[in-house]
Formats: sequence, structure tokens, C-alpha cells
Amino acid sequence: MQIFKEIESEVQSYARSFPVVFNRAKMEHLYGEDGTEYLDFLAGAGTLNYGHNNPLFKPLLMDYIEADGITHGLDLHTKAKGAFLESFNEKILKPRGLNYVMQFTGPTGTNAVEAALKLARNVTGRENVIAFTNGFHGVSLGALAATGNSHHRGAAGVSLNGVSRMPFDGYMGDEVDTTAYLEKVLSDSSSGIDLPAAIIVETVQGEGGINAASFEWLRNLEKICREHEILFIVDDIQAGCGRTGTFFSFEEAGIKPDMVTLSKSLGGYGLPFAVVLFRPELDQWKPGEHNGTFRGNNFAFVTAKAAIDHYWSDDKFANDVKRKGEYITKRLNNIVQKYGEGNFTTRGRGMFQGINCINGDIAAKITKAAFKNNLIIETSGADDHIVKLLCPLVISQENLTKGIDIIEKAISEVCAKEHNIPEESDYFDDVKMAS
Amino acid sequence: MQIFKEIESEVQSYARSFPVVFNRAKMEHLYGEDGTEYLDFLAGAGTLNYGHNNPLFKPLLMDYIEADGITHGLDLHTKAKGAFLESFNEKILKPRGLNYVMQFTGPTGTNAVEAALKLARNVTGRENVIAFTNGFHGVSLGALAATGNSHHRGAAGVSLNGVSRMPFDGYMGDEVDTTAYLEKVLSDSSSGIDLPAAIIVETVQGEGGINAASFEWLRNLEKICREHEILFIVDDIQAGCGRTGTFFSFEEAGIKPDMVTLSKSLGGYGLPFAVVLFRPELDQWKPGEHNGTFRGNNFAFVTAKAAIDHYWSDDKFANDVKRKGEYITKRLNNIVQKYGEGNFTTRGRGMFQGINCINGDIAAKITKAAFKNNLIIETSGADDHIVKLLCPLVISQENLTKGIDIIEKAISEVCAKEHNIPEESDYFDDVKMAS
Amino acid sequence: MQIFKEIESEVQSYARSFPVVFNRAKMEHLYGEDGTEYLDFLAGAGTLNYGHNNPLFKPLLMDYIEADGITHGLDLHTKAKGAFLESFNEKILKPRGLNYVMQFTGPTGTNAVEAALKLARNVTGRENVIAFTNGFHGVSLGALAATGNSHHRGAAGVSLNGVSRMPFDGYMGDEVDTTAYLEKVLSDSSSGIDLPAAIIVETVQGEGGINAASFEWLRNLEKICREHEILFIVDDIQAGCGRTGTFFSFEEAGIKPDMVTLSKSLGGYGLPFAVVLFRPELDQWKPGEHNGTFRGNNFAFVTAKAAIDHYWSDDKFANDVKRKGEYITKRLNNIVQKYGEGNFTTRGRGMFQGINCINGDIAAKITKAAFKNNLIIETSGADDHIVKLLCPLVISQENLTKGIDIIEKAISEVCAKEHNIPEESDYFDDVKMAS
Amino acid sequence: MQIFKEIESEVQSYARSFPVVFNRAKMEHLYGEDGTEYLDFLAGAGTLNYGHNNPLFKPLLMDYIEADGITHGLDLHTKAKGAFLESFNEKILKPRGLNYVMQFTGPTGTNAVEAALKLARNVTGRENVIAFTNGFHGVSLGALAATGNSHHRGAAGVSLNGVSRMPFDGYMGDEVDTTAYLEKVLSDSSSGIDLPAAIIVETVQGEGGINAASFEWLRNLEKICREHEILFIVDDIQAGCGRTGTFFSFEEAGIKPDMVTLSKSLGGYGLPFAVVLFRPELDQWKPGEHNGTFRGNNFAFVTAKAAIDHYWSDDKFANDVKRKGEYITKRLNNIVQKYGEGNFTTRGRGMFQGINCINGDIAAKITKAAFKNNLIIETSGADDHIVKLLCPLVISQENLTKGIDIIEKAISEVCAKEHNIPEESDYFDDVKMAS
Repeated sequence: MQIFKEIESEVQSYARSFPVVFNRAKMEHLYGEDGTEYLDFLAGAGTLNYGHNNPLFKPLLMDYIEADGITHGLDLHTKAKGAFLESFNEKILKPRGLNYVMQFTGPTGTNAVEAALKLARNVTGRENVIAFTNGFHGVSLGALAATGNSHHRGAAGVSLNGVSRMPFDGYMGDEVDTTAYLEKVLSDSSSGIDLPAAIIVETVQGEGGINAASFEWLRNLEKICREHEILFIVDDIQAGCGRTGTFFSFEEAGIKPDMVTLSKSLGGYGLPFAVVLFRPELDQWKPGEHNGTFRGNNFAFVTAKAAIDHYWSDDKFANDVKRKGEYITKRLNNIVQKYGEGNFTTRGRGMFQGINCINGDIAAKITKAAFKNNLIIETSGADDHIVKLLCPLVISQENLTKGIDIIEKAISEVCAKEHNIPEESDYFDDVKMAS
Repeated sequence: MQIFKEIESEVQSYARSFPVVFNRAKMEHLYGEDGTEYLDFLAGAGTLNYGHNNPLFKPLLMDYIEADGITHGLDLHTKAKGAFLESFNEKILKPRGLNYVMQFTGPTGTNAVEAALKLARNVTGRENVIAFTNGFHGVSLGALAATGNSHHRGAAGVSLNGVSRMPFDGYMGDEVDTTAYLEKVLSDSSSGIDLPAAIIVETVQGEGGINAASFEWLRNLEKICREHEILFIVDDIQAGCGRTGTFFSFEEAGIKPDMVTLSKSLGGYGLPFAVVLFRPELDQWKPGEHNGTFRGNNFAFVTAKAAIDHYWSDDKFANDVKRKGEYITKRLNNIVQKYGEGNFTTRGRGMFQGINCINGDIAAKITKAAFKNNLIIETSGADDHIVKLLCPLVISQENLTKGIDIIEKAISEVCAKEHNIPEESDYFDDVKMAS
Repeated sequence: MQIFKEIESEVQSYARSFPVVFNRAKMEHLYGEDGTEYLDFLAGAGTLNYGHNNPLFKPLLMDYIEADGITHGLDLHTKAKGAFLESFNEKILKPRGLNYVMQFTGPTGTNAVEAALKLARNVTGRENVIAFTNGFHGVSLGALAATGNSHHRGAAGVSLNGVSRMPFDGYMGDEVDTTAYLEKVLSDSSSGIDLPAAIIVETVQGEGGINAASFEWLRNLEKICREHEILFIVDDIQAGCGRTGTFFSFEEAGIKPDMVTLSKSLGGYGLPFAVVLFRPELDQWKPGEHNGTFRGNNFAFVTAKAAIDHYWSDDKFANDVKRKGEYITKRLNNIVQKYGEGNFTTRGRGMFQGINCINGDIAAKITKAAFKNNLIIETSGADDHIVKLLCPLVISQENLTKGIDIIEKAISEVCAKEHNIPEESDYFDDVKMAS
Repeated sequence: MQIFKEIESEVQSYARSFPVVFNRAKMEHLYGEDGTEYLDFLAGAGTLNYGHNNPLFKPLLMDYIEADGITHGLDLHTKAKGAFLESFNEKILKPRGLNYVMQFTGPTGTNAVEAALKLARNVTGRENVIAFTNGFHGVSLGALAATGNSHHRGAAGVSLNGVSRMPFDGYMGDEVDTTAYLEKVLSDSSSGIDLPAAIIVETVQGEGGINAASFEWLRNLEKICREHEILFIVDDIQAGCGRTGTFFSFEEAGIKPDMVTLSKSLGGYGLPFAVVLFRPELDQWKPGEHNGTFRGNNFAFVTAKAAIDHYWSDDKFANDVKRKGEYITKRLNNIVQKYGEGNFTTRGRGMFQGINCINGDIAAKITKAAFKNNLIIETSGADDHIVKLLCPLVISQENLTKGIDIIEKAISEVCAKEHNIPEESDYFDDVKMAS
């Protein structure tokens, strides 16, 4: 541990919550240097949908390395890239009726977002982009402008420009359809909201607090984009790759975005990887306009293809995720009812769910208590007030049950100690009443 | 090849120059699907200083994967990370008297630059940053503002702010010390150049055309930074990791930057990896202010440590690079003299050298002719007018000779065909004469 | 007329609606070169509250000029300035319990707004400013960023940054208190709306379409500013100086802004003049930080003082304006009822009222028809769909009646010709229904 | 005086140097409340080229007011405006072979600059503008971005974007032609200086320290603009209207800018007034895109026309200014020689000259000493180190002599007291030597 204190920057975050030196990992488990087994309900913040070091992919990766397959090839054509493209096209795009080209960006989500925003701005000749309250899209400056979190925004050190903020679904209470406000500002030539190049949205906001947009709201959003000739970008970096029960998180809403960003679990094995998908007509890039040394990661091509071939050739996996999602919903609803004094509520959909606590303090106590029982689980949301369940999708039912049991136990302990949990309040209602 | 045409974006660049599907690679060689062997003088644009799939590192990586070592762990402490930090500290920092902490950013150079600029701006409370003509620092918006290339800048789709541009060493001709101009604008309270948070510089500009700053100029730069309390950032992403003959490219200049960015060859095996180094007093990050899913890449920790242990435990490798650098210098000088009618000149230092052609057209013809002889080599510079020699540092003398022979042959062919090579001209001199 | 066509820029606007060469003016009348008398319901867009060339002020101005009183004195102390300050302090500020210092900016409204925003940003150290849908604050770049109109914004040629847009009172329909949304984004640390330096608002939006905020909404706004330590700026350039029936437009709401901008009718005689008022604690300007050649206009000091002395020493004038305002309300309500098929509605308060037409086309036809009867009247609003009644406050009852009669006649004519006036629609309701 | 202390903002500047309440003024004299006569070598910072309350214009202005001529008419056509346009066209533009249209902007120099920059950006579709070290163009945000002074820039409270800074003539020493550097960055596609919409320059920098560009340098600038299709804007607000000996300051250089901004002395009588002139092909404004309540000031039309008619119908006035300019040159050269120990140098041309002191402290002592002898004179430059002679052009020879005598006496006094005047140094030379 000494070396981390000595020369690793203070910027580290997760390492503070889980002050252990980890050594090995397998599917839903992490192991400390001392051999302690931890159940992982964080899953690399959504990067490990297929678990750690999935044994189905590992031999393929080792064979590739053994055979001196290309490791780094800039954006050169490689056999591994070609094979991945084939699988993605045949098993993901075509069955869903999606006609996209793929851009390999630098292998990070934020880079995919940067590329998408650049392309949208260049194709439309407009500068403004609409992003939503509580959205998270990365922390390089282009993506950070679209990110809502003030902790990250405040670190920019410069102005974050070119983005207008709109209220996400439900932000103004259940009665207000926030797309009506969006439609009005776009139709009003003196609203002060410049006609945007694009609207960028997460269907389920992960870092923003597991806020799931309704399908109707997403359809309204798509309709507005069509009417005003605005590009519709779904940032599916965290919600995609099966997390909500379908490969893309927007499938059930019946929408077809103009652009989609993917990263995190796309690589299958936890390797850095990111792409942008967009309609072929939008592919107006000039050669090398957006570049980067590590665009395309050949190791990830191998494991990404393996993940698609194994999990997305038929419906089995998707159905399994849906079933587990329903189990999570049932368990969380029970917990919320049982510990009603805690004023907990649930959030999210599929295997992307969370427990909304009254404040970040209580959420932190819960995750801390869970960690004492070797469960790795984190919070999200503006005030870190959401306990976020983000286990690998491949988790066994047994371990899923075990993990939620640990969470329930933690909640029980925290509720027992907290005697003065405040009533839930909503700023929006407060002000309306006051007014 | 069909799948690439069908669904890979038009943004691809290198793939256009070398329209082959590659399959395997070993040290200084790449192999096409059909088994053709190519000699690699591009080396992943500086990412493969230790060659492709270096056999010294490969078994260590395979053992790590076999043992289910952590692949993805966000920023958690891992044994692999600890071991890398130890090696880097003992074998790189301490022997050079450098006292830095290390931040693991998203595993791309541009992300390291974004982090460095953010930190510099936050620590100083200033917004402006000084970057240089022909500088290249990445294409995400924060880094892109510091990048000079109009092809990349034009793709931003938004204003690129917060950076003032200054002339690099030699930009105004040999007689003008451009740091004198820099010193004047910084001392002049109505120069219009706001006091910057930082100055960011490459000691040898790679993408900008293999422009090597003199050590004296770099020392002047450092002096100015100290006088005005400006942070001094060396972007050593391309020039670092031994390329110029020392681990850091600035060692021979005798300067100590406040911050250093590293990426490309740092990971050793061509795996995505990037860090920022800075003085401990500057480590004023709050937890998680700059984050990212793939910060820290555990596979790269393993191979990065291997590279340090093997190549940087003593002087042998550095001396070998210097020797090869001298050989390159000698050969290039001969070529330039021999084909004097081409008005070629040489650029760079160490194993980071190039041939300056009269225009991009001639440079393109040379690299194209070389590729016919199975040499992979690219151009750089504002007009792609520099033939850039960037072979792996570990290349055998035999192959180094062979590669340069191919280049010489290509130049010979091009010169034979081109009858009207224009006289070299320099805008700067032109205008001075005209005026 | 020829010379205007020959060398005056195409940027001219009002001159297109009223293609006459004017020569003389007196109170509510303008006279063409040919002697034609026009009744003025435009009043210099709110600059001529006291009429053209008010005979009460004229002799004072002529005496001043005759005596070689200072015309231009930069920001030097002059007797005229001192006398104006005394009157303003004694007759405007003190009776209203307002403790403000006054900054003389360049003599244009936009310059006063620029100064106010600069000071707010400097005092708070924050960059963001909140402005409202349909707000108009000027067209120099700092003010333009706060202005909503896309026609003006589009002319900037650069990004307009540093302003977040919020819905004005009533923008989301009568049921939604838009300050509740404002309160929520300010309390939500990941809303993406950075804590602002200031909120800038017009109590009645003139250019935006004569939208009058309710007093309750203004009080909510002030309360939110206090809670979040945000500076509260009322831009009273058009609504101030008596237009709504009190000197400041915000008096009846019972609020005390931190800063107030004044211009237009402040000078009394239509002379360029502008100031910012702010709480003494905010006066953190360093000498000359915001300057300008014409800050303070000594001729305007003379007439501004005369206007205050004559019209604001007691309640008579204010009561007269209120009475006329009520008369206007009554007449407009009658018109709206009578021509119900036109789906007209009324807007505004005091002598700042308008008729909301279904579209800009109908509004243009009405003002055109009125001009045929020698009434000068203009439109405002996003689509120029509001017929804006902005006559001098000093207008005689007879001419007020006459002017409205002309408007009614114009409406009658237009309604007679238009057979297919569309039903009123509201985007907001539309979308809500559609959804 | 009490009222100024009580309620005028701390932003005041000139009032601090000359703490007197002024009352009357006539040509080159100002008079305090107590009747004291002051000789004015400040002349409203260049606004009073024709003196205070010029008796040739006064009766015309009084007649206009007496006859109830239009005072405020927005941008309506008025007889006064027409007459001014005629005179300006016949007596200024045509004789000089200049074919410009005129835009009446808000009546301040900064507003004219804002309009010029907007138009240039819109016409070219480019965002960047090149401005020069030590340039001053106003303090509203659009103009401020082009202004060099850090005191003013620092007050912005937001980023100042869209402007690249280049070295003015002589900035890098006499040997370096700074247009050569400009030409190089514009021809170099990776210089990092985006192709600008316009270059904006003062031929003699007033606030920046009375730096006069050579005619050759101005011609180079024009040539570069033509080659790169960049609009060439001369900001002639301070140097124009005869200050350098010709109506436009650029006439002797033989250049024809695409745009010219005028204000300050244009109105003739010190009244707020500003215009932009540009080639008819550039007049691509849409109606009202750039507007403002006080654009066009009818009083100023009357006096501006009078000034043109009286002073610019023949060469007499221009020749008189040139003669006085030569006298000033002679006197200043003598002073500089005589007080050689002060290391003074001279600056400027025509009646726009200054004495460069070693530092701002000495310059302040000189102006203070002069004020004791009732001479009003100010400093300019980055460190307020230039004693700026800016008397009315209409000053009598007697008073010109008297004023310079007072300055010489003040210098003599200051030199007598200062025993340790430092050697002149130039940062540029220093660094060059050090390097």
C-alpha cells in the first residue's frame, strides 16, 4: 500500500472506498492480495457486464497473444478488427434493423462522445448541443460541457461552452412533460436556446442517479429531433451492452438514434475500447480529422467479438438479464417497503437499478456496511445518495441473492442506528408550495 | 477488405496509405494476411519503441492473464499497479532526481493532456495556456485547443479557447530567439496575452514536422516559467520513453518540468496507457475530479514494468539508441547531400528524425515508393512534407540499414522523375525581403 | 431619400417600416419634411417617455449650451453631473428607500448591461449568468449572450457564452411556476447549471413581446437569489423611468434588486445616456476598469435632472400614467373581445401594453394600416406578433384616444380582409397533448 | 464634491487625476467652478479635436434645438442625418477615392468595433480575428477581446475569445518585421492561428502608448490581407478625424481598409457618435441585426456636418495640423535631448505624440506637476509610462507653446528630484542577450 500513498495522485476515488490491494478476479468476484473474496456489485462501473476475466473469452485472447496477433496497429486494417466488424454487423446491427457505420475512437467513453459531438456539429454547421440535467458524458472538455456534475465541471478551469441544459424526464415532477418545454424553446425564435446540432441523452442516467427515462419521453425526444432536423445521440456507454435487458438500451422504446456511443462493456473483457455508430449519410469525416494513437484496441476486438458471438447470437442471455432484473425489482421493492421509515425509493430498469436514499450520508453508511461483508457496491447521483446495484450480468442467481441479502442487512443496520431520518422532500414541490 | 469499406467510418487515415489487412507482428515487422513481411518505420506513431509483441514482455503478460490477474479495476489498488509504480519510481524517477507523483488518466495521450491542463488551471486559478506553433497535443477539445494543426482544429465544430500561440524554436528564422518575444509579452501588461497557467511544449514536435527545440531554448523557456510563476509542462508522449536517447526527452537540456505527460510507448507492448507526472505540491486534485472508466490499464502495468526493468535498469539501451541515432543522422546527411537537387534537409534528434521535403507531394511519393518495397513509413508536418523515420528503438542494425536503404532508393526514384523541384523558400524570409 | 439608399447600410430597420424623412418633433408628434404630422406610439422604443423635445426641458438645455457648459468631459466631475446626482438621490432613491451608487457607463443600454454583468462576475468570482427566455439586453457581445432573440444572436459570428437560459414567468403555461424549476437546478449539484454570478431579468419584457412577470414570481426570484447568494439584476432600461406607472418597474413587487440598469428615457430628452445602480458593497471596481469615451453625457445630465425635478417630485405624474394605463387596458380588452375571431389577447401593464396577434403577418398588417393613418407603431416578440403600444407617457388624453382609435380601425380592416385566421395555439399545450 | 463621493462609483478614473468640479469650457480651455482656467492637453481623450464647444458649430446646434429638430429618432431617416451623409460623402469619401457605406451604431467607439467584428465574422464565416499587442478597441466583451490591456481584460469576468494576438510594428525590435511572422503563421496550416475573418489595427496606438506603425508595415499588412482574403479593419476612433494630419490616419500610407471605425471627434462637438464604414459588397447585414436605441445621434449629425464643412472643405486645416505636429516634434526632440539623463524618447506622429518615460511613476510625476500649472494632461501605455500630448487640433500656437512649456518645466522639476533614473531597458533585448 505504501507506494500508492507515496506516488499516486490524490485524484484516486474508488480506491478510497475499498482500501484493499486486489490481485485476481473471476466473473463476479474480486480477490485481495490476502485471498479474501469480494462480491462485485460495481462491475467496473458497468464495464464488466460479462464478469471479470470471463473464461469463455480468455483462451481466445491468450491464443491471439500467443500467435503474435497485432496488438497495436493505429487504425490499420487487421484481421481481428475485420472479424469483430463482421460479428457486430451480423449479430447486433442487422437483426435490429440498424444501418450504422462504426468509428473507432480513442478507447475511452469520453473520446467517443467527443467524436460524436464534433461530427454532429460539423454535419449540421451548428454549435449548440442539448444535454440534460444529471447527465454524465465524460470529463475531457468537449464531453464535460455536456456533463452535469458540478464536481467534475468545477475542475475544468475554463468555461464549458456550446451546451444548453434541459430538464430530464421527471425532473419537474411527474405532471410536467419536459419535452413540451424543449419543443417550445426550439420553436420559439427568441427563446435564447440556439438551434442545436444534436441532443445527447442517456436512456438511464447512471452517474446522475439511475434515472430511467420513460419510453414515451424518449419517443417524444426523437420526434422533436426529426421535426427540427436535430441529430439524436444516445450515449449508451453505461446503459448499453445488455445492462437494461437488450443490447442497446433504447430498443424497447422503439427509437432509432442518429448516433450511438458505446464503450465500457463493449470490449467484453474490461479492455479499453470505444466506438461511435452513426447513419452512413452522417459519415462526413475527412481522413484522420479525429484521430488518436490507440483508436481500435486489437485485444478488445478479440474479446468483443467473443462476447457478441457467445451472448448475443440468440435471446437466451437477454432473457436471463430480464429475469434477473425482475428479481432485483422485486427484492428492492420489498426492501423499500420494509424499511419505510428510511423513505427509500427505487430507481432504474433491468439490471441497472438503485435505491434512492434521503441523503448521501445514509447511502454511504449502507455501502460501507456492505463492504464489511465483502460486498463491493458504490453510490451515484448528485449527492451520492443512490445505492447503485451494478453487478455483472452473468452473475449466478445464488450470488445475486447473496449480494442483495448483504445490502438488505446493511440497510437494516443503518436504519436501526439512524433515529432521525428526515422526511423526503423535493425542491420542486417545496418551491411550488412556498410560492 | 469488404467489411471495412462497408461499415468502418471514412475517418480512417493510416489504413488508406497501407491498404493491407495485417495479421501478425513481431518487433520491427508486420505481416499481412498473405504472409508478406513489412518493415515498420512507423512503429505505431511512436507507440512501439520496444517493437511489436516484444518477446521479453509477452510471457509475463500471458502469465498474468492465465492467473486471472485483474484486467479492469477502475482506479482500485492492484498488485500490478503497485509493482509498476515501484519500478517507475526506482528506475526512472529516482536516478534522475525527479520527485513526481503520478496520475493515471484515461489511457490515451489526449486524456493525459486534458488532465494536465485542468490541474494547471486549477492550481494557478488562471485560464490561459501557452502552446506553440506546430504543436500537437491531441484532439479532444481541451487538448485540441493546444494543437496547431488546422485539419484537426477545423473539425472541432466549436471555438477552441483558452490557449495563446507562440512561435516555437526556430519558427522566425535562426536569428530570432522566440523566447525573447515570449518574455516580452509576459512582461508587458498590455500585450493582450493573459498571464498563463502553463506553457506546454514538446521538446521535439512529432506531428508538427520533427522540429527539435535547442536545449538552450528549452532552458530559456524554463527560466521564463520560473520568473512568471507559470507551470512548465513537457508533453513527452511521442518524444519520451527513449525515443531521443534518454528516457525523458528533456534530460539532456537539464530542465525539470513541473508536469510531464507520457503515453504511447509507456505501456511497452502497445497497450492503451497514459499518465501525468507532476510535483507533489501541485497534487491538489479532489478525489475523482478527473476520472474515467479505463484509467489505469492493468495489462499495461505488467508490460510497462517489464519494459522499465529490462531496458532502463542500466545505460545499455540508451547508449544503443544514441548510437543508432547517430547512424541515422549520418545516413540522412549523406542522402540530403547526394540528392541536393531535391533541396532536402534533415530534422530531429536521436531516433526521432525526418527528411524535410520541398512539399507534401514529394514526401508522399517517397513514402509510397518505399511501401512498394514493403517499408511502412509516414509523413508529418503542416503539409505532410516531412518523411518521418520512427522505427522501433529495438530494431536490429541490419534492418535499420535495410530500411534506410529503401528510403534512399525511393528518394532516388522520385528525384529521377521530378524535373522541376522548386527552390526551397521560407515565407518568413520572403516577406522580409519583400518588405 | 437618395443619399440613404446610396450610402447608409442595409442594417437599418425602423426606417423600412416608416419610409419618410422626418424633420421636427414635439411631444407625441413627429413631422415629416413635407409637414405631415404623425402620432408617435413608438416613442423611440421607450426612450421618449417625456415626449419629443419636451418644452419644459428645452430651455434648460439651450441655456446650458449657450453658457458653454461642459459638453464632453470624460468622467470628470462637472457641475451638471453633480446637480443630476443630487436630484436623483433626493427624489428617486431616498423616497424609495434605495441605497445605490451610480456608475456612468458608455451612454447605451447595452453598455450598462455589460458593466453590470462584469461587476457581478468579478464580485462573485463566478462566470455563469441566468437570463430568461425572450429576454432582450442589447447586442454587444456580453449583453447579446443574455439576449434571447435568434436574429440578433445569429449575427454574433462567435459563440455566446457564460449565460444559462431559464423559462420566464408563464413560459410553461399558467400552471407551472418556473421559479420552482430554477430553484431545483440551483439546489441540484449535478443539474449542469453552474451557480451563477447573477440573474438578470426585465420585469416586463419589451422586445420579447410585452410579457409582464407577476409580482409573486419576481419575489420568488429575489428569494432564490438571496438563498443562493446570487446577485439580482433588474434590467429596467425599457420598463423603467415611469413606463409601468412607477419610476422603477419593480416597485410594486416590493423587491430590492442588487443592481439596476437604466437608459432610454433616463436622459429625458432622448439623448444617449445610461447608468448602472448597485449596492455600495458591490462597488468593487478598480479605477477605470470599465471605461468609455462618452460615459456620462453632460447634455443628458441637464435634461435628466429636469425630468426628475418636474415629473418625479410628487405623485401626480405617476398617477396620471396609472390612469392612462387603465384606460389602455380597458380599450384593449374591448378590442380583443370585439374582434374575437382574430384570437387577439392583451399583454403588459401600465403604459407598456400590447396586442398579441396569431402571427407576425397579421401584426404587420395592423401596424401598416395604422401608419396609413399617420400612426407610428411597431411590433415586438419572437415573431413580431405583438402590436406594441409605447406612446409617450405625457401624451394628451385626446391623442391617446385618437391613437387607439386608429389601431382599432386598423384591426377592423385587417380582420375584415383575413378570412382564415388560425386558432390560437400554444406549442407547450400542443406537445403536452400530443404526448 | 460631496455628492460624487457619496454616490458615484469607484470606477471613475480621470476624475481622480483632476479633482476639480468643472463648469464651462471653450476650445482648448476648461474652467473650474471657481473660474480657474485650465489648458486642455487631454481633449476628451481625442474627442475634442475641434475644441470644446466650438463657436462655429454652437449656433447651428442651438438653432436645430430651437426649431425642434428631431433629437431622437432611432434609425429613422431625418433631414439632419441626410445632410451629414451628403457632406461626409462629398467632402470626405469622394475626394479620397473611398467607396464606403456607413452604418450608424450605438454612439460609442466600442459599439462600432463590435459591429465591425460581427460583420467581418458573418461575411467570412470565420471566427478568429487578429489584433495587436498594446491595441485598444473598447471594453464591451466583443471589443475587449481585441484589447490588449490586462487591467481592462481582467475585469471581464469571463473568457475573452475569438482573437489571436500578433506583435505590432516594432514590438520585437527594429530589426524584425513583425508582418513576416504574421505572414508565416497564416501560410502555415499547423501554426495554430486559425485563418481570421479580419485584422483590426490602429495606425497609431493611443491607449497602448502612442505607438505609430510605419507606412510600410501598414502596406505589408494590407498586402497580407489581400493574399489571404482577410478583411482589413482600421480602428480610426482615436487616430482619425485629423489627429495625425489627414482626415483618416491611414491616408499617407496609401492603403484602403475594408472597414473603418470612427467615433470620438467625428461628432465635432464632443457628442456621443460612432459609425462603421465598409465596402458596399460587405454590407450583408439583415435589417436590424445589429441595433441599439441611440444609433445615430441627431445633435451629432448637425455638429459633425458643421465640422466637415468648416474644416475639411479644403486643405487649410490639415496643413495647420501638420505644421503644429512638426512644431510638437521639434519641441519634444529638444526636451528629450535636454533631459537626456531621464532616458526619455518620443513617440507618435502629427498631433498624436508622447514622451516615453522610463516608468509610469516618472510619467505620473510629470503630469501631476503640469496640473499644478493648470495643464490637463494624461499618461497612456501598458505601465502609464507615456506622457500623452493630445491637445485640440484647433489650439492656438500661443497656447500650444504655453502647454509644452509647462510640460518642459514639469520634466525639469521631476528630473531635478529624481536622482536614480534607471537605464532604459527592453525586455526583448535583455532576453536575447541572456540567451
